[in-house]
Amino acid sequence: MVPDRTWTAALVVIGDEILSGRTQDRNVAQLATWLNDQGVRLVEVRVVPDDMDRIGEAVNALRTRHDYLFTTGGIGPTHDDITVDAIAAALGVPVIVHPEARAILEAYYRGRPGGLTDARLRMARTPEGAELLDNRYSGAPGIRVGNIYILAGVPAIAASMIESLAGKLEGGRPVVSVTIGARAAESDVADLLRETEAAHPGVAIGSYPFFRDGGHGANFVIRSEDGDLARATGQELAQRLRAAGYEPVDGGI
Amino acid sequence: MVPDRTWTAALVVIGDEILSGRTQDRNVAQLATWLNDQGVRLVEVRVVPDDMDRIGEAVNALRTRHDYLFTTGGIGPTHDDITVDAIAAALGVPVIVHPEARAILEAYYRGRPGGLTDARLRMARTPEGAELLDNRYSGAPGIRVGNIYILAGVPAIAASMIESLAGKLEGGRPVVSVTIGARAAESDVADLLRETEAAHPGVAIGSYPFFRDGGHGANFVIRSEDGDLARATGQELAQRLRAAGYEPVDGGI
Repeated sequence: MVPDRTWTAALVVIGDEILSGRTQDRNVAQLATWLNDQGVRLVEVRVVPDDMDRIGEAVNALRTRHDYLFTTGGIGPTHDDITVDAIAAALGVPVIVHPEARAILEAYYRGRPGGLTDARLRMARTPEGAELLDNRYSGAPGIRVGNIYILAGVPAIAASMIESLAGKLEGGRPVVSVTIGARAAESDVADLLRETEAAHPGVAIGSYPFFRDGGHGANFVIRSEDGDLARATGQELAQRLRAAGYEPVDGGI
Repeated sequence: MVPDRTWTAALVVIGDEILSGRTQDRNVAQLATWLNDQGVRLVEVRVVPDDMDRIGEAVNALRTRHDYLFTTGGIGPTHDDITVDAIAAALGVPVIVHPEARAILEAYYRGRPGGLTDARLRMARTPEGAELLDNRYSGAPGIRVGNIYILAGVPAIAASMIESLAGKLEGGRPVVSVTIGARAAESDVADLLRETEAAHPGVAIGSYPFFRDGGHGANFVIRSEDGDLARATGQELAQRLRAAGYEPVDGGI
């Protein structure tokens, strides 16, 4: 069997508020989990400030390197929302007012106080040649241009935008994760982990230690695109842990 | 007065667990906040997988571009902890067992079950020419090599390592943030925000909307290295918001 190719994605998180520590990013984890369900692997993330050049540089570095590039942040109605301008400049295309986006905003703000002001109309601007991504949460759409998917920074709105893409991105096999937990200091089982991984090509085992209820422990996450292999490796790891005197816990602790 | 130079830092977050969505990163926000107190601006973050080449590429791209480069993750005792090897390779120096680190680990594991095993001794490995960063939390030290600061991935351990650096990094003036909240849709005050920012060179105003208790609102964050300027701009923004019929809230909502 020819192995499936691996589809990859990158994410550019745009926002001074993440880099200042004011706001805790939630989009990396949210997008990573969702992409895996689509059979796409998130393999690189960059966080950049609200700066045209830095956004453009990251976008151009990553869009050619991966099947998909996502961005979050900077598509609202205020002066610090410059993502559309930065991406258009990076692609060398003009910014237009997208007719469909304008119609969506007209309908959304009809009857709302103030109506479709100039500031709100900013959210209809896209790089030329773009399509829209549905946003059932708050009206203003996301944007796709080429392989770039431009999402809002507010996690609930970003979630609404990617939901509209579910099942529409071409991907391969999702990575299957099997987690085995044990009340073991990871340094005590390091050899056992390394040997188990080495015996199973195509499998990666991560070790994530914790200190809880006064004791050390770790969760071992076995990842593979081959679900049967991941599960078999998990069972073998559990047996090895048991043989070494630990009580492995399926699903992790 | 000659303006202070701006000191900048970048962060490479290393870990499959972040890119798979399994683990929510906490180190970006933690390090960003701490760096600002030191007068250093975090201006770029990259998240990369547990892969020698990808770690090395990110480290080499960022270490020359910023005053300081931090990394988090991948310095434990298990086979997936490859940060030291990747950074040594990126710098073109060998990995050594650092005598001081070895002594720290010997003392730490003396009397603990198993003692200083080979796996635990992995945590004494550093790129040649490195110094150690104190870790009061769990023994195994962090590492400084050139302008690269290699921290643990577990946020509490990373916190312990940066705490040992407090006051020791050369920096400039911290950015002062002033937050004004209002029960305003940000699109209704977009002009007012833009005008206020434009009237105050050296100030950046970020707008962070929310939907809470059935109503829209936003927090406006005024940032500047000049604290007086940030505060004066905050007062002016509050006055403008009041004149527009809103009730500004000092410190945000």
